Amino acid sequence: MSTRIVCFGELLLRLGAPGRQLLLQSPTFDVHFGGAEANVAVSLALFGHDAAMVSTVPEGALGAAAAGELRRHGVDARRVATGAGRMGLYYLINGAIHRPSEVLYDRAGSAFANADPRTYDWDRLLAGAHWLHLSGVTPALGAAAAAATQHAAEAATRLGVRVSFDGNYRSKLWESWDGQPAQRLRALLAHCELLFASDRDIGVILGEGAREPAPIERIAAAAARAFAAFPRLQTMATTLRTQRSVDHHALSAVLVDRAGNMQLTPEYEVAPIVDRIGTGDAFAAGVLHGLISGLGTAQALHFGLGAACLKHSIPGDFNRVGVGDVEAFVADRGFHVRR
Amino acid sequence: MSTRIVCFGELLLRLGAPGRQLLLQSPTFDVHFGGAEANVAVSLALFGHDAAMVSTVPEGALGAAAAGELRRHGVDARRVATGAGRMGLYYLINGAIHRPSEVLYDRAGSAFANADPRTYDWDRLLAGAHWLHLSGVTPALGAAAAAATQHAAEAATRLGVRVSFDGNYRSKLWESWDGQPAQRLRALLAHCELLFASDRDIGVILGEGAREPAPIERIAAAAARAFAAFPRLQTMATTLRTQRSVDHHALSAVLVDRAGNMQLTPEYEVAPIVDRIGTGDAFAAGVLHGLISGLGTAQALHFGLGAACLKHSIPGDFNRVGVGDVEAFVADRGFHVRR
Amino acid sequence: MSTRIVCFGELLLRLGAPGRQLLLQSPTFDVHFGGAEANVAVSLALFGHDAAMVSTVPEGALGAAAAGELRRHGVDARRVATGAGRMGLYYLINGAIHRPSEVLYDRAGSAFANADPRTYDWDRLLAGAHWLHLSGVTPALGAAAAAATQHAAEAATRLGVRVSFDGNYRSKLWESWDGQPAQRLRALLAHCELLFASDRDIGVILGEGAREPAPIERIAAAAARAFAAFPRLQTMATTLRTQRSVDHHALSAVLVDRAGNMQLTPEYEVAPIVDRIGTGDAFAAGVLHGLISGLGTAQALHFGLGAACLKHSIPGDFNRVGVGDVEAFVADRGFHVRR
Amino acid sequence: MSTRIVCFGELLLRLGAPGRQLLLQSPTFDVHFGGAEANVAVSLALFGHDAAMVSTVPEGALGAAAAGELRRHGVDARRVATGAGRMGLYYLINGAIHRPSEVLYDRAGSAFANADPRTYDWDRLLAGAHWLHLSGVTPALGAAAAAATQHAAEAATRLGVRVSFDGNYRSKLWESWDGQPAQRLRALLAHCELLFASDRDIGVILGEGAREPAPIERIAAAAARAFAAFPRLQTMATTLRTQRSVDHHALSAVLVDRAGNMQLTPEYEVAPIVDRIGTGDAFAAGVLHGLISGLGTAQALHFGLGAACLKHSIPGDFNRVGVGDVEAFVADRGFHVRR
Amino acid sequence: MSTRIVCFGELLLRLGAPGRQLLLQSPTFDVHFGGAEANVAVSLALFGHDAAMVSTVPEGALGAAAAGELRRHGVDARRVATGAGRMGLYYLINGAIHRPSEVLYDRAGSAFANADPRTYDWDRLLAGAHWLHLSGVTPALGAAAAAATQHAAEAATRLGVRVSFDGNYRSKLWESWDGQPAQRLRALLAHCELLFASDRDIGVILGEGAREPAPIERIAAAAARAFAAFPRLQTMATTLRTQRSVDHHALSAVLVDRAGNMQLTPEYEVAPIVDRIGTGDAFAAGVLHGLISGLGTAQALHFGLGAACLKHSIPGDFNRVGVGDVEAFVADRGFHVRR
Amino acid sequence: MSTRIVCFGELLLRLGAPGRQLLLQSPTFDVHFGGAEANVAVSLALFGHDAAMVSTVPEGALGAAAAGELRRHGVDARRVATGAGRMGLYYLINGAIHRPSEVLYDRAGSAFANADPRTYDWDRLLAGAHWLHLSGVTPALGAAAAAATQHAAEAATRLGVRVSFDGNYRSKLWESWDGQPAQRLRALLAHCELLFASDRDIGVILGEGAREPAPIERIAAAAARAFAAFPRLQTMATTLRTQRSVDHHALSAVLVDRAGNMQLTPEYEVAPIVDRIGTGDAFAAGVLHGLISGLGTAQALHFGLGAACLKHSIPGDFNRVGVGDVEAFVADRGFHVRR
Repeated sequence: MSTRIVCFGELLLRLGAPGRQLLLQSPTFDVHFGGAEANVAVSLALFGHDAAMVSTVPEGALGAAAAGELRRHGVDARRVATGAGRMGLYYLINGAIHRPSEVLYDRAGSAFANADPRTYDWDRLLAGAHWLHLSGVTPALGAAAAAATQHAAEAATRLGVRVSFDGNYRSKLWESWDGQPAQRLRALLAHCELLFASDRDIGVILGEGAREPAPIERIAAAAARAFAAFPRLQTMATTLRTQRSVDHHALSAVLVDRAGNMQLTPEYEVAPIVDRIGTGDAFAAGVLHGLISGLGTAQALHFGLGAACLKHSIPGDFNRVGVGDVEAFVADRGFHVRR
Repeated sequence: MSTRIVCFGELLLRLGAPGRQLLLQSPTFDVHFGGAEANVAVSLALFGHDAAMVSTVPEGALGAAAAGELRRHGVDARRVATGAGRMGLYYLINGAIHRPSEVLYDRAGSAFANADPRTYDWDRLLAGAHWLHLSGVTPALGAAAAAATQHAAEAATRLGVRVSFDGNYRSKLWESWDGQPAQRLRALLAHCELLFASDRDIGVILGEGAREPAPIERIAAAAARAFAAFPRLQTMATTLRTQRSVDHHALSAVLVDRAGNMQLTPEYEVAPIVDRIGTGDAFAAGVLHGLISGLGTAQALHFGLGAACLKHSIPGDFNRVGVGDVEAFVADRGFHVRR
Repeated sequence: MSTRIVCFGELLLRLGAPGRQLLLQSPTFDVHFGGAEANVAVSLALFGHDAAMVSTVPEGALGAAAAGELRRHGVDARRVATGAGRMGLYYLINGAIHRPSEVLYDRAGSAFANADPRTYDWDRLLAGAHWLHLSGVTPALGAAAAAATQHAAEAATRLGVRVSFDGNYRSKLWESWDGQPAQRLRALLAHCELLFASDRDIGVILGEGAREPAPIERIAAAAARAFAAFPRLQTMATTLRTQRSVDHHALSAVLVDRAGNMQLTPEYEVAPIVDRIGTGDAFAAGVLHGLISGLGTAQALHFGLGAACLKHSIPGDFNRVGVGDVEAFVADRGFHVRR
Repeated sequence: MSTRIVCFGELLLRLGAPGRQLLLQSPTFDVHFGGAEANVAVSLALFGHDAAMVSTVPEGALGAAAAGELRRHGVDARRVATGAGRMGLYYLINGAIHRPSEVLYDRAGSAFANADPRTYDWDRLLAGAHWLHLSGVTPALGAAAAAATQHAAEAATRLGVRVSFDGNYRSKLWESWDGQPAQRLRALLAHCELLFASDRDIGVILGEGAREPAPIERIAAAAARAFAAFPRLQTMATTLRTQRSVDHHALSAVLVDRAGNMQLTPEYEVAPIVDRIGTGDAFAAGVLHGLISGLGTAQALHFGLGAACLKHSIPGDFNRVGVGDVEAFVADRGFHVRR
Repeated sequence: MSTRIVCFGELLLRLGAPGRQLLLQSPTFDVHFGGAEANVAVSLALFGHDAAMVSTVPEGALGAAAAGELRRHGVDARRVATGAGRMGLYYLINGAIHRPSEVLYDRAGSAFANADPRTYDWDRLLAGAHWLHLSGVTPALGAAAAAATQHAAEAATRLGVRVSFDGNYRSKLWESWDGQPAQRLRALLAHCELLFASDRDIGVILGEGAREPAPIERIAAAAARAFAAFPRLQTMATTLRTQRSVDHHALSAVLVDRAGNMQLTPEYEVAPIVDRIGTGDAFAAGVLHGLISGLGTAQALHFGLGAACLKHSIPGDFNRVGVGDVEAFVADRGFHVRR
Repeated sequence: MSTRIVCFGELLLRLGAPGRQLLLQSPTFDVHFGGAEANVAVSLALFGHDAAMVSTVPEGALGAAAAGELRRHGVDARRVATGAGRMGLYYLINGAIHRPSEVLYDRAGSAFANADPRTYDWDRLLAGAHWLHLSGVTPALGAAAAAATQHAAEAATRLGVRVSFDGNYRSKLWESWDGQPAQRLRALLAHCELLFASDRDIGVILGEGAREPAPIERIAAAAARAFAAFPRLQTMATTLRTQRSVDHHALSAVLVDRAGNMQLTPEYEVAPIVDRIGTGDAFAAGVLHGLISGLGTAQALHFGLGAACLKHSIPGDFNRVGVGDVEAFVADRGFHVRR
């Protein structure tokens, strides 16, 4: 439990229509906590690492509940500050068959988005950390959050903390404040060693325009361009997802390193999906775990994909599995009832 | 929103065992409102049309709730009268895998079935309407309901309102009062321009005996016989359904016009099914929307099938989707989470 | 309704995480009653037989509720005694996709496990019975329960009551008290006429070591060894299960008689599974029903497999289906909504 | 457990809005089984007596569930027949504070109301019985049910079975078919030995017009008139209820015997009420238990009142308490948590 | 149904912890729609009036659901516009005993608060209206909402529409943008004929500083000052509430007219309270109904108090009662179960 | 946050029938974590202190969930060990009106009760602690738990850690293993400085036999005897509870110090009670907070009583209130909705 990973991002409340209902079809919301970086922190804590969250939540019952939920899963929540503003939240309508799921963000004006970047003392916050994990959602939230993310990345470089970054490109968030994503993300990536990004994410970052998810060759090419553009970058990984229906996907994953070596996993059928949210974060946490634990890149990638596949079977944003659960997946130990 | 469609039929309360439970396995019912024609009215209202319901409900809280539910979805419920009698209802047990779903009707003695057909002033009720939608469930409920349906159809012809009719043959209902379905349905169909009917429905209507759902050629032949028998009839459409298991169907649809042209959609796999009830009504509403909106018959049919497929993903009797949702299906826009 | 079957075993409370949630993800348990032999008793009662349960439950509300639940399903619960000790229970976490289900037993110190074997007066308890049904779970619970099971089997032989036995090998239970399963089970099997056992169960019983589920040939060979070892044994049957994922299995069944005749059913795809627990008990009850009702072995086996397949569609431990439901499966009557 | 009491009446399904919600405010019903006489049967079974139910339910899942629920509580349900017709039901809206509770009956056309009185073979049904319990709800359901009730009472007199009768006057039910309640109830009362009736019930029975619940003196006078009119009548008892609000009542009870002796209990404050339904039936069962068990009339009355008071604390129609629970009430053992 | 009342204000989503739980104690929210003016509109519609809502909601599923909920209760929602911004919401924690309830507003940045006041064409929106109902919550939401409210009041005066105003002083909302409540409220009150305001509200409006709720004499004096300050004002009414505990209040009401006549109702004990929210709005709607219906002021006041008392028994923000329910309260018809 | 309090005791799972239902009336349990000492730890953590739990839970999901729940509320759970055995649990049936609540313990064989007392290294576990809190439940669980408790108290004395002890006498637990409570409790009390005990508890401890809760004078006398018997004892406090019904209690509290000074609070009416469990623990935590925070004994006692009263309004075992909530109670700030 000696590797310390600091995750920085917003904590969100998820308000979900129960089961496969539409929004407010019945007068109840199922509630979960989430947020891309918090999902990674929880997963890493459940894998036995010293995961800490840096964030800002509103004062009062909602912010306290968010921090308490992190603690419950073993995340160090002592660096979760309180500030003025509301609790960021999103509404989720689970899709089914041919009906896609919908996420309605309601994050504007949140305590996190409002937080002055100067309130984060990164030298103190990163003390003792080995890794800093960031994602592309945070700089998309507005100028203050973008500045805070950049400060964090710069401090990490200065302090010798390795930086992991998950692309998570959300065009609507960037467009809502004309945030110049390519420029900002390039400045961030100059500090990153590990990147979770699809071909499409790379395109956005390098200003090549958004594209649809792509075949392996395009990923290899995109990775090559990314390594050329960002000298600190050592590793890039992404999942490959084929959606046969809303409830049935097929998943594999690919990892490319600076030397041009590519690892590719087998493809797994994932059906019927219980909860699609947070599967990318589960992948990132799984790969990070693998690299931290000294697994080779092939094994780390397979572990990451296993974590992602398992997340599809778990309600909520957090990947509530342990190392043993993922190892059983990787080792193909079957589907028997465990008694 | 200028096309006005009047739907006439019974409003029902559905009492469903939760999830995949058997009846009263736990002491709770999930409750929905439904009824074949009300389902069509709600769907058309959600597609942006001026849909109105003509019906009779019991006085008091139950009838008021039924009318309120229609209003909630934008249906004009001002022509829903109150009368003596009970609220019609049905119990639903959702099947799974090899266990078929079960519907237990409890409609006898309802305010709708009891309503004197003379209480409906069709000249007033159809004022301003472009279409009247009926189904074969209503005349099956008893002599009073059958007479009311016939009066409605005759008034429509007299007033130049186009009549749409969905076969919905329910043998148990007809047998419960020896209702002579063939004779009554033929008298109704003399007024219809648009017919939703399978080969089997046609057989019943033309007194040829009930048969199992049939291949395309038999549908074409049945349609030909129907066009010959009913000179006002212009169009006949039906879904084709292959049931691979209780949770997994494959759906396509076919439409034949008086000129003998036949349109056929691709087949879609529909699994795992969330709610099977009301999918035929969703199809009828979708095709009606297509024809009203001036889509060609091929496009109208595809739209109808898309509406039907989407209904399988939605709990309850109503097809709570908009035009954009169905267009995304028809355009094959994929299964990504909408953010 | 004249055939009386006495089932002897523990009644259990099942505490299940709702839906596909992990344990205590939300602060609620779904509760069911179960227990391998009680599951058989309930199923036989629902098939119209005179099924009686012999067991011991704690005094007070929990034991009373367990007995009441049996009565509700038509089981004769007058031979359910009360005794000192707790209510045996188990926690269930339903798996999904690649995440296996988990059962956490909490049965130690139960009133049943504590019950002095001398409190069972088998001459009285088996009066009027045609069959006694036992399973390998009961002797695994400890020396007292093992002695009671042996006494029951011996009394049955003495009284001319036929004995049915379901292997249900649970290694953890046996290991918890060093119970010498092979020796004890062999002593029991000397009294059995009908055996539900996989190749692996036979291996355990004959002291050949546990193995993975096996192909048909190995089952035939195992059966031959079992018939050789146990002269009273007439029939052996088992299901064959291929697990494509946690939610999707394929099932068939095989039956071998002392003369060496083997019956084999077709294989059925079972997906998406609602509840996996109790499917083996459903199979045993179905085969027993078939044999009791005078169906031939092939038909009895098919009926048993149908009962097992249907159980996968039903929440809880009990197979809440009637003879007609299984007959519809065997006759392949399809998946239409029953109205 | 040697005293056998036969109860005759309808089994009802109750569909209740959850908590204090109005009808269909949320799309769920809480479901309970009930019926005045079934409530008495369940209570007597839980008090340890041999209680049997005679009734008619619809074939299929609903009727089977009703009978199963009786068995669960230890009632002999072997005399519950099946017949054509629907399941009788009622909707319940729990009131609060100043808002009265509402019951919407939906019993017309039920299998029980439809049952031909000749299908009840009372000589067989009453074999072995010591008491027959009837109530004024049953003859109010229509001519067939009234005839069946009368036949039952006559057979009881003929067979030496003592008759208990609970007034339960429901004016709406009588008025729905012009049933001449006074005449029919008088014919019934000629056979009764024990009567649960308020001053108002007596007024109806003797054709004196309905009145509001009355003070003790009027009850004594009414009892005197009842004893004069019905020579078999030995005992009359009733609760006295002051409603301080919907949630807060005060209850006492009075019993008068043919000799003119009057017993009166203390008054108990009952608040906040959990469930008001079935409290009169709980009282009747409690008094019957007291008389059967040889308690004096004062103690039997106190026991009956205790049963009634406790019922206000229990959700559903059945009084799920045992003799010990009521004895603790009568002995004033206090409100400590029982550990 | 000929009196048309237009209500202007924000529609809110309420996210409530279930039962008496604290926030997020379990991961579920009970959801209701509300908003002070919408509550009045729904109540008036349920009293049979032509109530219309003017508001702005966000585009998409949440805004559509809000409008649908109004339609469900018979409110004319055709004047509910859509606009940019989020759905206003509030979190509710129901208190109990000594623990006060808590409301956490989350309304900043809502589509309603963001709406440009020029988007409301009051001449069109007030066409055909007899009354305009406003409340002090709306101008407290920010400059845009304050301007829109003022425009509405001025238009009403110009068009001869009578204005009703409910004080609803919320200091936190006013302080959040330094809104100068006294000045703005005085400008509004210059147009009002009917005022719902406590002594404390009047103090705020006249710049006399906030005070605690006051005895009758202070209300009379405050009313006198209000009549002096606002020449159009004819009537002022308020409830008087004594809080014995969180669950137990005592309510009466007082009304003063310009001539100095004062009406006072009896005091009613209200316990145990089901839902405290919206009781002031229920009072306003009740008094408005009384005045519209031509009841005298004493009767209108009593009706309003009855409506307010009944609201305490109903979950959610809306007062789901009809005229008959309130009349039964006023006439003191008692607490009997209505069958 | 500098005062560290170590609490030692068992963590329990509570399985509660929902609402006011009887056990298994519906097939669901509401689940909470509790345990007398854990309740104190959670309350102290929520009051801002450094509260730590020492306990033993079973390995696996249940034990992990228990520790996670403590962390969620800010308790230091790093000293919660895992061990062989089951999860201790209890069933709760909430009473109402005249029906007492029931607790069914199911704690035998738990990992905590099984834990070898030598596994607790008290020098390490108490390092940095200022207080050790124990209760009389723990030594009642068996010889191992009694020894562990005694070791803890002795170590505390040795290390200068002050000891707080809550009597919590449970006769059934002591009787189940013939535990000699008087002797064992006296040995423990020799180390205690602060004692929560009723007159009845003192009687048990001093071997004077159990008595009913007593008036103030008997408490003063009992305290005097306790101070005489236990020289380290400085303070004794207890609540005084009058139970008007199951739902309505009246509470006050009394504190006596070694000098014979007695503090007495006012009496508060507590109704309608939401949850009775854990109110004594809430009192102990409140008094401890007061003493730790330097409040005088009168104020500490009032604070403790306020904490206890508030706990009655909160579902579950934990007193989820902060210092501000209790201060508002003590200051009598009223029952207004907090907005």
